[in-house]
Amino acid sequence: MEFSSKLLEKAVAEMSHLPGIGKRTALRLVLHLLRQPKQQTESLSEALLNLRQTIKFCEQCHNISDTSICDICSNGFRDGSQVCVVEDIRDVMAIENTGTFKGLYHVLGGKISPIDGVGPQDLKIESLVNRVNSGAVKELIFALSSTIEGDTTNFYIFRQLNGSEVKVSTIARGIAVGDELEYADEITLGRSIQNRIPFESAIKS
Amino acid sequence: MEFSSKLLEKAVAEMSHLPGIGKRTALRLVLHLLRQPKQQTESLSEALLNLRQTIKFCEQCHNISDTSICDICSNGFRDGSQVCVVEDIRDVMAIENTGTFKGLYHVLGGKISPIDGVGPQDLKIESLVNRVNSGAVKELIFALSSTIEGDTTNFYIFRQLNGSEVKVSTIARGIAVGDELEYADEITLGRSIQNRIPFESAIKS
Repeated sequence: MEFSSKLLEKAVAEMSHLPGIGKRTALRLVLHLLRQPKQQTESLSEALLNLRQTIKFCEQCHNISDTSICDICSNGFRDGSQVCVVEDIRDVMAIENTGTFKGLYHVLGGKISPIDGVGPQDLKIESLVNRVNSGAVKELIFALSSTIEGDTTNFYIFRQLNGSEVKVSTIARGIAVGDELEYADEITLGRSIQNRIPFESAIKS
Repeated sequence: MEFSSKLLEKAVAEMSHLPGIGKRTALRLVLHLLRQPKQQTESLSEALLNLRQTIKFCEQCHNISDTSICDICSNGFRDGSQVCVVEDIRDVMAIENTGTFKGLYHVLGGKISPIDGVGPQDLKIESLVNRVNSGAVKELIFALSSTIEGDTTNFYIFRQLNGSEVKVSTIARGIAVGDELEYADEITLGRSIQNRIPFESAIKS
């Protein structure tokens, strides 16, 4: 791509560093900004800079936060004895949207994945173990994605907690509500039969 | 979507003002920036701001440029008697990439489209007419997209030039090089038969 303007070329190059944004899309986005009032570009730049320069991570759960302890951790109405272990903030948002979990979170920041060069020391695992050992946590709920990396991470944490009395559970996997059995994959369907639950508890939820 | 951080919420909101970027994609992009070194966000913001605040449009052809007359218009080796009329800078880049056109451009900035509220006065049509009337232009080549809006714009400009001696042509429409006739749409195939060219000129190009 040949540009008639160095400024345009630079802006497109920077924009196309974002994941999933190629040169063409970057050019489309940048030309869009040029057609809009200056304030739009200014407030976009300012919001990104502000976020990147002043964002904090909660000292307890490592979730993205404006304060050193996040709103969830500092909420006295939440149950500090239950901690849900997730990969990143998007998982926290997804679970919060369900409105069914009133405990706290622990954001690992990823999964153990040797292929991507991510080891246990790159994640907030030590801090989770310390949190459990401090005694306030009675139950850990693993909610990582059910991939090899997720399972490995679950198992690694489980081993690290050896000797601790904390109860460890994992979220239920099964056929989604409203889905047809016919179209479910075998592993999910198999697991949902193995991990069947008493009908009484199903009709209560 | 509920955010645990106002800064994050603001950045996602600004990002999702870009065309084709929804809330989820915006969140993904912003979280990516948070995982990268600070410099990446800083240089992205700076490049966008720099572009938006200092970009110029060429006074002659209205293309995006770092200077008041763009590199193409100020290039003495180019043929000022031919002017190709295009919609925006992406069309200029596409034609420049072919390496077959040595004339100048005129960037209209859009097409006449009453449905989008774009009238002739919103485009650089008057400036094109003035450019033609000044006498240096011998041939105008319309290269707008072949939609109703593009055809309307071509026709409007053609009418405005009434009385001028400029030659007006339009780029050839036809079956793409390498395409099978079988899969071509009827209008394109029909036009390419109507506008057939002498075989001698085809083998020369």
